Amino acid sequence: MMLKTHSCGTLTKADVGQTVTLNGWVQRRRDLGGVLFIDLRDRTGIVQTVFNPDFSGAALETGDKARNEYVLAVRGKVVERDAETYNANLATGEIEIRVTEIEILNAAKTPPFPIEDGVEVDESIRLKHRYLDLRRPEMQRTMLLRSKASKVFRDFLDGEGFLDVETPILTKSTPEGARDYLVPSRVHAEEFFALPQSPQIFKQLLMVGGIERYYQIARCFRDEDLRADRQPEFTQVDIETSFLSQDQLLGMMEQLMARVFRETIGYEIPLPFQRITYAEAMDKYGSDKPDLRFDLEIKNITDIVANSEVKVFASVAASGGEVKALNAKGCASWSRKELDDLQPFAARYGGKGLAWITVKDGEWKGPIVKFLKPEEIEALTERLGVEDGDLLTFSADKPKVVADVLGNLRLKLGRDLGLIDESKFKFLWVVDFPLLEWDEDAKRYVAMHHPFTRPNEEDLELLATDPGKVRAQAYDIVLNGYEVGGGSMRIYKRDVQELMFKTLGFSMEQAHEQFGFLLDAFEYGTPPHGGIAFGLDRLIMLLTGRTNLRETIAFPKTASATDLMVDAPSTVELSQLEQLHIRTVAKPSAKPAAAGAGAPQA
Amino acid sequence: MMLKTHSCGTLTKADVGQTVTLNGWVQRRRDLGGVLFIDLRDRTGIVQTVFNPDFSGAALETGDKARNEYVLAVRGKVVERDAETYNANLATGEIEIRVTEIEILNAAKTPPFPIEDGVEVDESIRLKHRYLDLRRPEMQRTMLLRSKASKVFRDFLDGEGFLDVETPILTKSTPEGARDYLVPSRVHAEEFFALPQSPQIFKQLLMVGGIERYYQIARCFRDEDLRADRQPEFTQVDIETSFLSQDQLLGMMEQLMARVFRETIGYEIPLPFQRITYAEAMDKYGSDKPDLRFDLEIKNITDIVANSEVKVFASVAASGGEVKALNAKGCASWSRKELDDLQPFAARYGGKGLAWITVKDGEWKGPIVKFLKPEEIEALTERLGVEDGDLLTFSADKPKVVADVLGNLRLKLGRDLGLIDESKFKFLWVVDFPLLEWDEDAKRYVAMHHPFTRPNEEDLELLATDPGKVRAQAYDIVLNGYEVGGGSMRIYKRDVQELMFKTLGFSMEQAHEQFGFLLDAFEYGTPPHGGIAFGLDRLIMLLTGRTNLRETIAFPKTASATDLMVDAPSTVELSQLEQLHIRTVAKPSAKPAAAGAGAPQA
Repeated sequence: MMLKTHSCGTLTKADVGQTVTLNGWVQRRRDLGGVLFIDLRDRTGIVQTVFNPDFSGAALETGDKARNEYVLAVRGKVVERDAETYNANLATGEIEIRVTEIEILNAAKTPPFPIEDGVEVDESIRLKHRYLDLRRPEMQRTMLLRSKASKVFRDFLDGEGFLDVETPILTKSTPEGARDYLVPSRVHAEEFFALPQSPQIFKQLLMVGGIERYYQIARCFRDEDLRADRQPEFTQVDIETSFLSQDQLLGMMEQLMARVFRETIGYEIPLPFQRITYAEAMDKYGSDKPDLRFDLEIKNITDIVANSEVKVFASVAASGGEVKALNAKGCASWSRKELDDLQPFAARYGGKGLAWITVKDGEWKGPIVKFLKPEEIEALTERLGVEDGDLLTFSADKPKVVADVLGNLRLKLGRDLGLIDESKFKFLWVVDFPLLEWDEDAKRYVAMHHPFTRPNEEDLELLATDPGKVRAQAYDIVLNGYEVGGGSMRIYKRDVQELMFKTLGFSMEQAHEQFGFLLDAFEYGTPPHGGIAFGLDRLIMLLTGRTNLRETIAFPKTASATDLMVDAPSTVELSQLEQLHIRTVAKPSAKPAAAGAGAPQA
Repeated sequence: MMLKTHSCGTLTKADVGQTVTLNGWVQRRRDLGGVLFIDLRDRTGIVQTVFNPDFSGAALETGDKARNEYVLAVRGKVVERDAETYNANLATGEIEIRVTEIEILNAAKTPPFPIEDGVEVDESIRLKHRYLDLRRPEMQRTMLLRSKASKVFRDFLDGEGFLDVETPILTKSTPEGARDYLVPSRVHAEEFFALPQSPQIFKQLLMVGGIERYYQIARCFRDEDLRADRQPEFTQVDIETSFLSQDQLLGMMEQLMARVFRETIGYEIPLPFQRITYAEAMDKYGSDKPDLRFDLEIKNITDIVANSEVKVFASVAASGGEVKALNAKGCASWSRKELDDLQPFAARYGGKGLAWITVKDGEWKGPIVKFLKPEEIEALTERLGVEDGDLLTFSADKPKVVADVLGNLRLKLGRDLGLIDESKFKFLWVVDFPLLEWDEDAKRYVAMHHPFTRPNEEDLELLATDPGKVRAQAYDIVLNGYEVGGGSMRIYKRDVQELMFKTLGFSMEQAHEQFGFLLDAFEYGTPPHGGIAFGLDRLIMLLTGRTNLRETIAFPKTASATDLMVDAPSTVELSQLEQLHIRTVAKPSAKPAAAGAGAPQA
């Protein structure tokens, strides 16, 4: 077997004159008047090989048998092409290989889709034959970049004294374990392991264990309602530290992101990142993950219209709601249809409607204009920076609804009006998340992150008096409108933890029933600690300019949580279930068992 | 909160005069006539801090409240100790900290065992409180070394162009899936994912996908009969390459091992590794993972005793068995009891007995001596290098039994006679494993590794005629008598694969039923490929001089596959099982359900 001495895609004019051996796949073959051209592809790229009776001898005959995706070994000399046959589309376009020896290492059936980028192929076909899809240059680049990004994460964290510690995948179902995958076993009848939704508990225990700085690129699992942008298993870069302040940790993580972007795609992220509070993010952008590649701020006008003749404004203001406006610069020329479409748009996000005003030739037009007093128009003009050609949009409702409606309208306008510089990566920290949120069903406060999130020092006394106002030392890292990471400083003092549980409506006894060993552990000298986790899949998606998480994962699952290539999940032998001391129960609305998707062993 | 400016264990005389802030745990406190000494510990080590009314002010009073494992922040000046109080046992023993400020960051209950090395504590207590056990210097060193070793693996492989690719953990049950963990899910009633026993199939598909060089530090799972040295989840460094010969791959892996040992413990491994064939390993050392830190070869004497008056020798030789001997140098002085103990020892490994001869003052003694002819004694003297003081031991049986008995006797002698240099790391490759082994129950050949292992080129035609003789391009890497890795080159040609399946008694149709998509994938241009996997847990065990795999894992499971700290596996809510469309079935010999080990939610 002739084994490679060089890679296809890296040969240049500097190699002219060398005899090289290449291994790769046939990308394309052409026979031009008895001369055979085979483009050979490997991980690094494509090079043109030439078989000519003048120098190829018997190799020509063998080469002639090769078809697309055959695996070849060829040996030959690197020669410069005639200048007029330079191929500018190919990194190796100035040279070619004059083949003197060839070996067909393997034949190939015709693949179900061409191995090249930009071809429209149904995603399910690509996923079924992922091993062929992975051969496409785009997937190769993505896998390379993902590997590189992981490496940069590790290099940085290792350099900062973080230990890579593996935590269990077979672990215990958590109290909020509704989305836990459970795992029966042969040894333990009627008991189950659970796959971790994150290593949260273990990383905190590592801090109790004195590891001080921990990281892990960790697989996490969630058996949840299916959504297009979720995978049942996903990867997070999980980080926890002791003896660092939130500021120190966030500063370090900025350095980390800067290095990842620099070393993978050569992009320089300006430091430090902008930091805005959750309250400000919700107020100005209607989102806790605002896309700040463009401005377009939402303005609160509740004060201006509190006594307005516009009934809905006044009544919302009187009932503690909010009236907010977004000025769509230059959109006064929208068609009636476009304006009408604002209503279903608002409805999609829970709004009852969207009032609008167009400003053309100094004239304000729209259903509500006649109810506005001159001083209101004046105040709005100033607050919203109204100019000729603007379209003003208004939402009046509970704050959450207003934020959802105008936050999403803001994003739509950003895209539609071309306000977004797609070449830009805009990071920011959203800080001071609320510690608690009111659960209307349970009629009590619940932890917004988890019950170990540390409240802000200065809000501690509010825990007893006005829990909803307490801010947490919790933060998200947002990139171009996506949450790419988040975390918090943790409670490490018993008295604070007790107060927290009390606020959540638990006694310490009840808390112990739920969190047992973790609270035990915290009794033995817990250091101040906190951490963060980055969603690696999503970060790679953004780094590679993709919009689909599946494109960042070598062997992803579909939106319905199946692996089309290996056909998983699948039915299993009854004997396997017997050994695991379980049996299946038909779904109430179930299809007949035999109709399960691909059941080769059933 | 006073946050650390320095680490405890790294302060030296070079830091004298500096004011430092330290964070750590109280290792020990002593009050000597109003002067308080607190040894403060962090991940890096221990330093002595001093509280003296002369310079500590109010800090003395606060410091006095601290107890073992309290978490402190102290600030003070680094001063040199009086020379006579130097502590040679402490890296920081020449200095101490004169504390001027202190903050008790957290209190601690008295731990259930002292946080120091070398204390006898029941392992189950340590595992239950693993977060405390991890604070011990020995565990800290192990976690640090494990993290470092993983990093060196990655650095080396990244440097050689390997891509770190993550493969699924929720995948499909394999045909030999008896030991698969199965995972039900909410979405797919009556179907199951399986946790991978290794990423074998995916790494081969990555080669089909043109990744060329893949690695992953991968979690693997096996729900198997419990053994002390197995974990239900374990970690392997998984590697696969295309377009490399076995020699190239093995050479690269030797460089990898050399770098891991150099950069973790500063040990220089001589290269290249010794390579011996499976046949030679079994013949000379009675093991496919011989410990070659010492010689002590087993000798085949079947030819010498084929016609012996020693009936058992002659009859074993006549029936195709083997007679082999091990010369225990200098053991002629063994007591009668020691000699008698050889019989149960042999029995433990399936032997019917062990014949022995002592050689003292030129005289051969033992039950069989009277049956030996002079020419046999002469031949044995030469073959076994017999000298005065030797003890000769003999096993006659089927080759496998002889290997087990004498192989284990060899190891015992190596240990008992102090032949093993414990400071030495002796690597070797065992190559040319048999491709197939005869399955007495199934009355057919089965694959020794797996059905994709590539036969040696020169043995290909034996596949049809004498399959048991076919050697495979399969190899194990052995260190000090432990298998620390293994792999093979894979079949990539369809005709060879068909022949292999035929030899295993499958038609291609049956093979397709079992291996479906993998065989499909192989049709589309599979490159020559092969790989290896290292057992990381075991390698770390050997690197750190431990004898227990659990000591290398942050949160291990017991030999009965339970996590004593988090109490997993555990019973779960019935509603969880309902959502997963399963129910439990009591074990035939089951204890009552409520008596399951720790069932907090039941």
